[in-house]
Amino acid sequence: MALISIIGTGNMGQAIASVVTRGGNELELFGETDAATPVRGDIVVLAVPYPAVDQVLAQRPGQFDGRIVVDITNPLNFETFDSLTVPADSSAAALLAAKLPAARVLKAFNTTFAGTLAAGAVGPLTTTVLIAGDDADAKAALAGVVTAGGLKAIDAGSLRRARELEAIGFLQITLAAGEKISWTGGFGIVA
Amino acid sequence: MALISIIGTGNMGQAIASVVTRGGNELELFGETDAATPVRGDIVVLAVPYPAVDQVLAQRPGQFDGRIVVDITNPLNFETFDSLTVPADSSAAALLAAKLPAARVLKAFNTTFAGTLAAGAVGPLTTTVLIAGDDADAKAALAGVVTAGGLKAIDAGSLRRARELEAIGFLQITLAAGEKISWTGGFGIVA
Repeated sequence: MALISIIGTGNMGQAIASVVTRGGNELELFGETDAATPVRGDIVVLAVPYPAVDQVLAQRPGQFDGRIVVDITNPLNFETFDSLTVPADSSAAALLAAKLPAARVLKAFNTTFAGTLAAGAVGPLTTTVLIAGDDADAKAALAGVVTAGGLKAIDAGSLRRARELEAIGFLQITLAAGEKISWTGGFGIVA
Repeated sequence: MALISIIGTGNMGQAIASVVTRGGNELELFGETDAATPVRGDIVVLAVPYPAVDQVLAQRPGQFDGRIVVDITNPLNFETFDSLTVPADSSAAALLAAKLPAARVLKAFNTTFAGTLAAGAVGPLTTTVLIAGDDADAKAALAGVVTAGGLKAIDAGSLRRARELEAIGFLQITLAAGEKISWTGGFGIVA
């Protein structure tokens, strides 16, 4: 059994928490008033909006060293819905990994809406979590938590693929915001 | 009824041809030996690999002016499977549009494998074609051909979203090449 720390109690934090507990893994959930309580998890999920990530890092110096840290963000420009706020040849996950050289950073959960994580399904398909990262053991550990929670997991490759995962997340959000798809739908994966 | 010209008789050209004819639209299909025959279609689909697009343009000067031109390419570096060959802040479709200022360029069909276009389904889901472009009428015309052929179509936004469609196509190909998904599966969309 793994201990999963989730920082952030919004829709995504709660949905990922439901996956963790469905799978029988241990959960600690941190809200905004818990900044003074150190994380202890084998896996730490940063379930905060992209602009809040740096504040979490500043509040918790050194706490992520040696841990698996999961970036779930979609760094959209929410004023225009027309671009990301990270460099086109990089990703939010790559920027985070550069700030946390002693952590094993993964990108995951950014291509699945909260509703499909909580429900476990995208229409007729079981929800699939795409996981990108440079550490195979870290990816396997997170995949274990995901599959124990009743979802599917796919290793999407190295952390460089976070760029593509963030493009998918970006497009999916624009489609839902434009009412082309529902917030309970989106991209499903047929293996 | 629309006339659709497809340049390219590979897997994708044939699969898109099957969609056109299923929908009762008129088709003209151009192989490598047909370079001297001008296209006449309302919609012209460039169903050739990305490195061959410039040759098609050189063979057919002025022929695309005033027409709807559909870019289906995934400009992968097929030696590394680790990057695209177009600038990170652009797309193959944007580069094509710059070369064909008198055409209405759309991005479509690059997120659907040939097998799912021909079958009309991705697992339990009807295959959905994502269409990006700056001309609403052009997108509606192509969507009409797609839906007449039994598939679904979603307007994915402006031609700037081709960048995200190419990221999806890129990731999907790497997943299939890595045997994480099948060439008859991939991303499906639940509206």
